[in-house]
Amino acid sequence: MKVTRLSSGISIRRTIADGTGQQVAAVKEIIQDVRDNGDQAMFRYAEKWDGAKLSSLRVTEEEIAQAVERFDRQLLEDLTEAAANIRRYHDSQQQKGYQLDHDDGSYLAQRVTAIESAGLYVPGGTAAYPSSVLMNVIPAQVAGVSRIVLISPPGKDGTLSDGVLASAHILGITEVYKSGGAQAIAALAYGTQSIAPVDKITGPGNIFVALAKRQVNGDVAIDMIAGPSEIAIIADDSAYADEVAADLLSQAEHDPMASAVLLTTSEKLADAVSKEIERQLASLPREAIASPAMKNHGMIYLGETIEELITAANQLAPEHLEIMTEDAEAVAEKIRHAGAIFIGRFSSEPIGDYFAGTNHVLPTNSTARFSSALSVYDFIKRTSIIRYSEQAWQNNKEKIARLARLEGLEGHARAVESRSWEKGNQS
Amino acid sequence: MKVTRLSSGISIRRTIADGTGQQVAAVKEIIQDVRDNGDQAMFRYAEKWDGAKLSSLRVTEEEIAQAVERFDRQLLEDLTEAAANIRRYHDSQQQKGYQLDHDDGSYLAQRVTAIESAGLYVPGGTAAYPSSVLMNVIPAQVAGVSRIVLISPPGKDGTLSDGVLASAHILGITEVYKSGGAQAIAALAYGTQSIAPVDKITGPGNIFVALAKRQVNGDVAIDMIAGPSEIAIIADDSAYADEVAADLLSQAEHDPMASAVLLTTSEKLADAVSKEIERQLASLPREAIASPAMKNHGMIYLGETIEELITAANQLAPEHLEIMTEDAEAVAEKIRHAGAIFIGRFSSEPIGDYFAGTNHVLPTNSTARFSSALSVYDFIKRTSIIRYSEQAWQNNKEKIARLARLEGLEGHARAVESRSWEKGNQS
Repeated sequence: MKVTRLSSGISIRRTIADGTGQQVAAVKEIIQDVRDNGDQAMFRYAEKWDGAKLSSLRVTEEEIAQAVERFDRQLLEDLTEAAANIRRYHDSQQQKGYQLDHDDGSYLAQRVTAIESAGLYVPGGTAAYPSSVLMNVIPAQVAGVSRIVLISPPGKDGTLSDGVLASAHILGITEVYKSGGAQAIAALAYGTQSIAPVDKITGPGNIFVALAKRQVNGDVAIDMIAGPSEIAIIADDSAYADEVAADLLSQAEHDPMASAVLLTTSEKLADAVSKEIERQLASLPREAIASPAMKNHGMIYLGETIEELITAANQLAPEHLEIMTEDAEAVAEKIRHAGAIFIGRFSSEPIGDYFAGTNHVLPTNSTARFSSALSVYDFIKRTSIIRYSEQAWQNNKEKIARLARLEGLEGHARAVESRSWEKGNQS
Repeated sequence: MKVTRLSSGISIRRTIADGTGQQVAAVKEIIQDVRDNGDQAMFRYAEKWDGAKLSSLRVTEEEIAQAVERFDRQLLEDLTEAAANIRRYHDSQQQKGYQLDHDDGSYLAQRVTAIESAGLYVPGGTAAYPSSVLMNVIPAQVAGVSRIVLISPPGKDGTLSDGVLASAHILGITEVYKSGGAQAIAALAYGTQSIAPVDKITGPGNIFVALAKRQVNGDVAIDMIAGPSEIAIIADDSAYADEVAADLLSQAEHDPMASAVLLTTSEKLADAVSKEIERQLASLPREAIASPAMKNHGMIYLGETIEELITAANQLAPEHLEIMTEDAEAVAEKIRHAGAIFIGRFSSEPIGDYFAGTNHVLPTNSTARFSSALSVYDFIKRTSIIRYSEQAWQNNKEKIARLARLEGLEGHARAVESRSWEKGNQS
């Protein structure tokens, strides 16, 4: 693993999924096709890209029941417990509106309501993660979204993975569709004969899914476009090299583009972690993915002081930040930019991916500077309410008219003044 | 004004600022130019498009002081009072984090912090609205953003409008730059020699500004891309036609693309409003803007029942919705989608534009289905914190490892298990 001194600076990587002009055009065409031809286009694409001949896009109750039947009991229990943890954490994000009453009889208010419908895209194949179902659906449920839809590409046999359907079952989700790629996003955004459109689309996906989400954004809401997974670890002499290495590899195995960075004051740890990475890689099933990730996007930075490491972490604004140092809490206090912070050696990052209760949909590409984990707040909207009394109007109409005229908007001034115009029996 | 029956359906208009391929390419080029050439490019564009020969991009304290000197005392007072109202309303949006402590000694937390820097784009010329400065800056200040920057195109004489500088002064904003268009957005996003980059860019602008915001989105955060202004009014026989007409025109005068819709159960009101629109248009200074808006995007819908009007309003999900009916409160209760609701005849829409305290940056194009007014929430971010205890790890490590293996992520499972590996004196 490459080792370099922090004093010579830190490189911040940005990998935005822009796609090639060809990919963008292809996605545009697919979206238009779905808008024009609806289900018929959906069936065509399912056959073309998923190799699945479908008679219906909707997963039947029976299919879900059978998947749950086949699914491992122990894992069903584990997922159910994870779901409860995630729900408990997100329950605290429920937001209330407020009302400000004024002495003049007027009031202002902010009304908070859930969006009405949300669609979750679940990737197919090896990336069909039950945990993604929990992490995307539960915040929407806590927000009070009344219609929650799942869509995921079918296998050649026209079925979805048991794990995904079992997760849907645990959460009480019954509206599930078989479709993948840009066409699935188009269907969620604009609807087809058998799929009603939704207000917000969330969930991970390949470049075509990402580009489709970009293109429909504005017609519907979307969540962030996630980049490759990232982990940074701040560690000192007190850390164990095998644990540090294992945690770095846990992100590296996601994607050859994933990045794994160690920030340490300990040369001893740096050397030991390098050796451990090699040792552990040798027996890692996803070595073919993790190796290039470590080789191209893995780095060990050596700093003189913990302060230097903290500054570097804030510059990286990583998706996941682990802190394995003496007094890790004090270090965590000084972190300003990170998607999620894992404090102490027993807070290994995968604990947050699956079970602790926090959301694993987190800002990548240093966007933790200005964005946050997926949350209940992403599934609510706020309406401003203005109730002016006659008294309030009397007291303020001249000021408001002056401000409108300052901006050259005479019509605005007249609207406010119109309440004092002579009324005929005009209406 | 066109009158039609709701029973024959309602047309929902969407006007997304996509721009032409030529415009998109031009903006891309400008952004690259600013990234490559910094201030030098900024000066070049200021001369080319604003006709201003600048020696410095930064507005001096003296320029601000002089502008305040020149500015009308009464208006300065009005703006100061408006700012206080806006601050009071937004103060209630301050958000706290939370921490959940578990019996096993572990805890989860959500830490809320302000983003570090925000840049507000203020259009030039007649659209240089002091009110926009208040509406964009105050939520950022309430959130606790430490660095807030204003940027606005200079006039030929190389100065900014007194109103904009006076508003900045009222809010204590001292970092103000002279630049407009795509180059200003590029400078805020990527920085130049004299302008440090920001984390989030907000504020209205022309198509070039909108396209630039789209292109830098992801590298920095942006607010919504606002479409033309919209107003819908639900009114019955109890409403006054001259007031309804004046309020419709107050939005129509913004933009020939602005839309103004009346939803009413009263044919009498419909006729009277049509006549009033003609009468008031005749003497409206911005008649040349308001007329085409009313002609092309103005509509009166007649409904049989108030319920029918409410349904239509929810389909429109308008930026601004006024309710001028008997028991307007009860009607407002049934509105699910609107940026802002103005209840009763004394709540004329411009009151919200300037003075009441709610934010006038609101979702257009029916996006009120899933988005909200600009608020304090737009200037904060949330960091998840996971502190697992040894006990919590002991209790849950097997479940977590099973879930990781279910997803084929052996490295995740091993990371969690690594805490129980035999340690040599490796570190």
